Amino acid sequence: MQQALVAGIDIGGTNVVFGLVTHDGKIVAKDSLRTAAFAEISDLIHDVSLKIKQHLIGFPDYALVGCGVGAPNGNYFTGNIEYAPNLAWKGIVPLQSLFENSLGVKTILTNDANAAAMGEMLYGAAKGLTDFIEITLGTGLGSGIVVDGKLLYGHDGFAGELGHVIIQRDGRQCSCGRKGCLEMYCSAKGIVATYAELTNDSGDVTAKVIYEKALAGEPEALQAFKITGDWLGLTLANAVAVTSPQAFVLFGGLAHAGELLFEPTRKSFEKNLHNIYHNKVRILSSQLNENDGAILGAASLIFNEHE
Amino acid sequence: MQQALVAGIDIGGTNVVFGLVTHDGKIVAKDSLRTAAFAEISDLIHDVSLKIKQHLIGFPDYALVGCGVGAPNGNYFTGNIEYAPNLAWKGIVPLQSLFENSLGVKTILTNDANAAAMGEMLYGAAKGLTDFIEITLGTGLGSGIVVDGKLLYGHDGFAGELGHVIIQRDGRQCSCGRKGCLEMYCSAKGIVATYAELTNDSGDVTAKVIYEKALAGEPEALQAFKITGDWLGLTLANAVAVTSPQAFVLFGGLAHAGELLFEPTRKSFEKNLHNIYHNKVRILSSQLNENDGAILGAASLIFNEHE
Repeated sequence: MQQALVAGIDIGGTNVVFGLVTHDGKIVAKDSLRTAAFAEISDLIHDVSLKIKQHLIGFPDYALVGCGVGAPNGNYFTGNIEYAPNLAWKGIVPLQSLFENSLGVKTILTNDANAAAMGEMLYGAAKGLTDFIEITLGTGLGSGIVVDGKLLYGHDGFAGELGHVIIQRDGRQCSCGRKGCLEMYCSAKGIVATYAELTNDSGDVTAKVIYEKALAGEPEALQAFKITGDWLGLTLANAVAVTSPQAFVLFGGLAHAGELLFEPTRKSFEKNLHNIYHNKVRILSSQLNENDGAILGAASLIFNEHE
Repeated sequence: MQQALVAGIDIGGTNVVFGLVTHDGKIVAKDSLRTAAFAEISDLIHDVSLKIKQHLIGFPDYALVGCGVGAPNGNYFTGNIEYAPNLAWKGIVPLQSLFENSLGVKTILTNDANAAAMGEMLYGAAKGLTDFIEITLGTGLGSGIVVDGKLLYGHDGFAGELGHVIIQRDGRQCSCGRKGCLEMYCSAKGIVATYAELTNDSGDVTAKVIYEKALAGEPEALQAFKITGDWLGLTLANAVAVTSPQAFVLFGGLAHAGELLFEPTRKSFEKNLHNIYHNKVRILSSQLNENDGAILGAASLIFNEHE
C-alpha cells in the first residue's frame, strides 16, 4: 500500500513556499516561488501544481492524498481568499477549487495563522493540547484559536483576528482603517513604532536592530520590548476571559527575541489575569522551525481531518 | 408514555427561583426561596428538592427527567460552584452531585449567563442561531458564548467572562481585585458610577432612576447611556475579532433601557468593527421573559443535551 503525502502550501506576500509532507510531519521535498512573479492567480496555480507533480515523481511509493493551503484572508468555509490587502489578486479568489482542479485531490484553505496553529498542535509546542491560541508575530500579528482540538472559525470563517482587537481607543492608525489595533503595538511594525516614539527617530530602525540594541543593553530598546510585552500580556489575559485556553504559543520573528519579549509579556499577563484563571494558562514558545512551520501547518490541515 | 419535565433552578444572590418546564418551554410550576435563609447548602438542597417533588405530584402524566442549575461561578465540568463572591457558601460547593442525590435525576450545572444563552437559543431571540454571545446586564455583566450550537466552556469551564475583560488600563476598581473591567462600565453599577462622575453626585442614584432621568431628557443621564453604549459597542466589536458570532443578545435589567442603550451601542459597534465583519453581526434584544428566563435557561441545559 502506498503511503500518504500531503502538499503544504503557504502563500505569503513575498514568497509562495510549498512542500510534500509525510503523516509524521517530515518534509520530504521543499520549494518556493516569488509571489510577485504571478500577476494572474491561474499562472500561480499552474506553476505550483507543476512543481508539486514533478517532486512527486521522486516518491513512487507515496500517493498525494490532499493539499493544505495557508494564505492571508483564506476562508475555510468558502475556500476563497477574500480581499487580502497584501496580495496582488484583488477581490475574491477561489483558491481551494483552483487547486482541487489542478492537483485532483481534496484541498483545504485557511489563513496562515490558523495553519500555524494546526501545525503546532500536530508537530510543535501544542502537541497534546486541546485548547490553545497560536499568536504569529510577524510584520503584523495573526492568531489561530483551537477549541476542543478544532480550529475556531466562527460563523463566517473569520474568527481569531486578535491582531485587530482595539487595545487603545484613538491609538495608532492601522492599515485596516481603524485606530489602536493590537498589531500596531505587538508585531515587528509595532515595536518599530514604539521605539521611534521613545527615541524620536524616524521609524527606520528595524525590529532586528532594536533586538540587537536591546541585547547590547540600550535602555530605549529594552523599554520598547517592555512596552510591547505589557500590551501583549494584557491582551492575552483578556483573551483568556473569552475562550479560557490552556496555553498561548508565540510563533514567528518577534518570538525569537526570547526572554526580552517573554519576560514582560508573562509579567503583564499574570498581573492582568482574572484570579479564577491563575496558574492555569502557559505562554509557550513555538517549536516549529520557522522556515518549515508554514508548510507543516498547511499540510496539517489535511492530516488533522484524517485523524 | 409519560411526558418529560425538567427542573430549572436559578441560584442568585438574593433569591433561588425554580420551576418545572416542558420540552416546548412552558413553565408549568414556579416557586422561589430567599437565598439568605440557607446558611448551609444542604438545607437549600433539601428544601428546593422537597418543593420540586411536591409540585411534581400535580403532574401525574409527567416524569422528571433532569435538573438544570444556573449559579454564579457554576462550573459545567466539575459540577461545583467555585468561590462565588456573592454567595454565603464559601469555597467549593458540589452542587451537581448534591441535587443528583436529592432528586435522583441527571443534573447539569453551569453559570447563570451560560444558562441564559441556552435558554435564548432554545426559546428566545437566538432560535435558529448557532454562533452568538449572550450578554447579561444586571448588577454586573455576564456572558455566555455559543459556538456551533454548543456552549464554549474552554479547558476549565470558565470561558465567557466578558465582564472581566479589562477595557481601561488603571481604570475603575473592580470587585475582582483588578482595575478597568468591562462590568465596571457596562452594567447597573457601571452606569451608576459613570453618572456619578458626570454629576459629581455620591453614586446614590440607581440605574433605574438614571433611566427615568434619561427618558425625561436630562443631558447627564443621556450622556451616561451614551458612554455605556460606547464602551459596550467597542468591547463587542473586539469580541467579534475573537469568536466571529452571528449576533449578540442583550439580556437583563439594563437591556430594558431599549434604544437609550442600543442606539449608542450599535453606533460604537459599527464604528469599531473590522471591515471583514461589517453587516454580518446583529445586536439583538433578549426575547426571554426576565422572570422566567433564568428558569427556562437552566432547564434548557438538559433539553439541549436531549436534542
